[in-house]
Amino acid sequence: MSSKRVAVFRKEHFNAAHRLHNPNWTEEKNQEVFGKCNNPNYHGHNYEIIVQVIGEVNPDTGYVMDTKELSTLVKTEILDKFDHKNLNTDTEEFKNLNPSAENIVMVIYDKLRNKLNDTLTLKIRLYETERNFVEYPVD
Amino acid sequence: MSSKRVAVFRKEHFNAAHRLHNPNWTEEKNQEVFGKCNNPNYHGHNYEIIVQVIGEVNPDTGYVMDTKELSTLVKTEILDKFDHKNLNTDTEEFKNLNPSAENIVMVIYDKLRNKLNDTLTLKIRLYETERNFVEYPVD
Amino acid sequence: MSSKRVAVFRKEHFNAAHRLHNPNWTEEKNQEVFGKCNNPNYHGHNYEIIVQVIGEVNPDTGYVMDTKELSTLVKTEILDKFDHKNLNTDTEEFKNLNPSAENIVMVIYDKLRNKLNDTLTLKIRLYETERNFVEYPVD
Amino acid sequence: MSSKRVAVFRKEHFNAAHRLHNPNWTEEKNQEVFGKCNNPNYHGHNYEIIVQVIGEVNPDTGYVMDTKELSTLVKTEILDKFDHKNLNTDTEEFKNLNPSAENIVMVIYDKLRNKLNDTLTLKIRLYETERNFVEYPVD
Amino acid sequence: MSSKRVAVFRKEHFNAAHRLHNPNWTEEKNQEVFGKCNNPNYHGHNYEIIVQVIGEVNPDTGYVMDTKELSTLVKTEILDKFDHKNLNTDTEEFKNLNPSAENIVMVIYDKLRNKLNDTLTLKIRLYETERNFVEYPVD
Amino acid sequence: MSSKRVAVFRKEHFNAAHRLHNPNWTEEKNQEVFGKCNNPNYHGHNYEIIVQVIGEVNPDTGYVMDTKELSTLVKTEILDKFDHKNLNTDTEEFKNLNPSAENIVMVIYDKLRNKLNDTLTLKIRLYETERNFVEYPVD
Repeated sequence: MSSKRVAVFRKEHFNAAHRLHNPNWTEEKNQEVFGKCNNPNYHGHNYEIIVQVIGEVNPDTGYVMDTKELSTLVKTEILDKFDHKNLNTDTEEFKNLNPSAENIVMVIYDKLRNKLNDTLTLKIRLYETERNFVEYPVD
Repeated sequence: MSSKRVAVFRKEHFNAAHRLHNPNWTEEKNQEVFGKCNNPNYHGHNYEIIVQVIGEVNPDTGYVMDTKELSTLVKTEILDKFDHKNLNTDTEEFKNLNPSAENIVMVIYDKLRNKLNDTLTLKIRLYETERNFVEYPVD
Repeated sequence: MSSKRVAVFRKEHFNAAHRLHNPNWTEEKNQEVFGKCNNPNYHGHNYEIIVQVIGEVNPDTGYVMDTKELSTLVKTEILDKFDHKNLNTDTEEFKNLNPSAENIVMVIYDKLRNKLNDTLTLKIRLYETERNFVEYPVD
Repeated sequence: MSSKRVAVFRKEHFNAAHRLHNPNWTEEKNQEVFGKCNNPNYHGHNYEIIVQVIGEVNPDTGYVMDTKELSTLVKTEILDKFDHKNLNTDTEEFKNLNPSAENIVMVIYDKLRNKLNDTLTLKIRLYETERNFVEYPVD
Repeated sequence: MSSKRVAVFRKEHFNAAHRLHNPNWTEEKNQEVFGKCNNPNYHGHNYEIIVQVIGEVNPDTGYVMDTKELSTLVKTEILDKFDHKNLNTDTEEFKNLNPSAENIVMVIYDKLRNKLNDTLTLKIRLYETERNFVEYPVD
Repeated sequence: MSSKRVAVFRKEHFNAAHRLHNPNWTEEKNQEVFGKCNNPNYHGHNYEIIVQVIGEVNPDTGYVMDTKELSTLVKTEILDKFDHKNLNTDTEEFKNLNPSAENIVMVIYDKLRNKLNDTLTLKIRLYETERNFVEYPVD
């Protein structure tokens, strides 16, 4: 079974404050488009991340990738930067990028993509709430 | 990041009664194939819908589509028609179509597909129970 | 540890159609009070039951009560009567009793109470949806 | 069954930013006690509220209390004030009260207690995350 | 609000193998009573623990007890001993005590009770599966 | 709607003990790679399986496949072999194959693939814990 490709998933989470805002728009336009999410004093979420890594199963370990290593990678690259932070003010990534779920999931993808072997396929799902979530990239 | 495609998901739910039945079959045949689901007095479910919309992220908003708009669309097109209804007797859609999960998910897809911009890709997942669910279309 | 009391819980589910209705009221009054839940053609739910039994732990088995026996009891007394049924028309219990969550949970309690040893304390939680649920009796 | 008491539960949620902080302490002491939760720029949560109301079942309705009314009450008294807000800066309640889960659940209780009939018993459970939650009052 | 009592909950989990067995019984009796759970080669579970601590809220912190401390206590006293272990063969606690959910929850209670201040009330809920769980002590 | 393809999902679960181990490695190497999962006395999990079957909807039934039949197939082919078992010692499949989640999901796929009509597409997702899961095959 050594040449078969399997998807491995690891779920992690972080808590953060954020605000949706476009600095090129008036306050009225921001309020109209983003509504409650534009609150200048921020609101927040319990974000859940599901990291999917696809690769061949190593016949010696039976692993595509050790999920403990994957968990450590997510902690180092993502949770240490975003957990218990204000995304707009405390992070370089969202100083000039609106922290919508769509933009957050692409930033997380780019950070983890840089750290994974090219033979592995990566996809990220991000839950902002139980009812609103995003996934990137798409097939 | 303006040209990247992201999947956005919104979860909604409705409660309905239904009955599985093929009018071209005898009662015995209906009972044999559909079992308890053929009960002439109906049974019911808490249906969960997950609507997936794939599209490019608008660089001004950071959105593929505002999930509040997506939620409103599902409410108008689906929940207002099916919530707290008897699918077999109270809806035009299932007067002549067996309300199996497979048929319901295709009906929901067609209704929402008509209302979305052609640049957006749509997929629907429908949970009839926590253990039985369907998805349409398939890749 | 033989004389200590422990609570044991078993979760089961059934799917049913129902309608809220008071036959002593006018249609207008029923519609005003019960709204969508008064639909004459019924709607339905995936009901989840959590049965709690409190008793002393048997030192020979380490059990308060075998959960397989508890599961069988719930199947025989509750699920076989209510699953895939129309509560209003297919059951004796709700022919003359409005099948609100409150009334259903009391009926389930009475049925199981009759079958359990008096040394065991019983409590029932019933989920009508993930967001609406009831419990009986209260301390 | 008119004189029996039943517990009715309704689940709601809100998203908010907050920061744990004691203004009578030094920055070092605040950091030592509250750690990441003391971030001066705030972090946030998806808070889940479960409101429990115990009372007698009205024989005319089969209800202890209409869960639609209970939901509306929670929206008016709690969600409209706290949802998509910064608890520390946008609310009167937490201007001078540290918004720990314990303090939030007691504030929510007091607000709803004022609006409910004295014959009804009230208890609130508040989830800050899936793994950290609180309940008030205790028996 | 300094003299009010609030319940604080912390959820943790561990994975373990176990086998239900009474050494004073014949193999036939063990098989008859415990069925599949008596498999001499063991089976296993993802156990979820919910630790409930009731106490007065400290007016300086807004905490009954820091949930980080509570989490650390559960890790040291419970998870380090039981996680990824065979309860029957790898632990002193279940060498001579049948590891039923009832017995496990009482053992966990005793271990944590010894480490908590007497002013705090403790209760443990243990999920063996999503459908089978226990709680100790009972009111 | 008879020629459209829909995905149907059925969720099942089993509880089992296992141990990760490579017999060609030293004890030290096994311990280094598999850590706690290498415990010679085993640990265990509540495994959740989600079976996905894609096919055309039969216009007579509205079904891709009766989920009761799918459930029965999973019980016969998978649960009867693995539930309440020690995967390493009680099953032929893992006597010489390390029971990692990746290897288990491929074994489950092969067993069910043999029993399904070639016109149906099959995919399996296996949860080892809520935070670690795998899927096979990948597109």
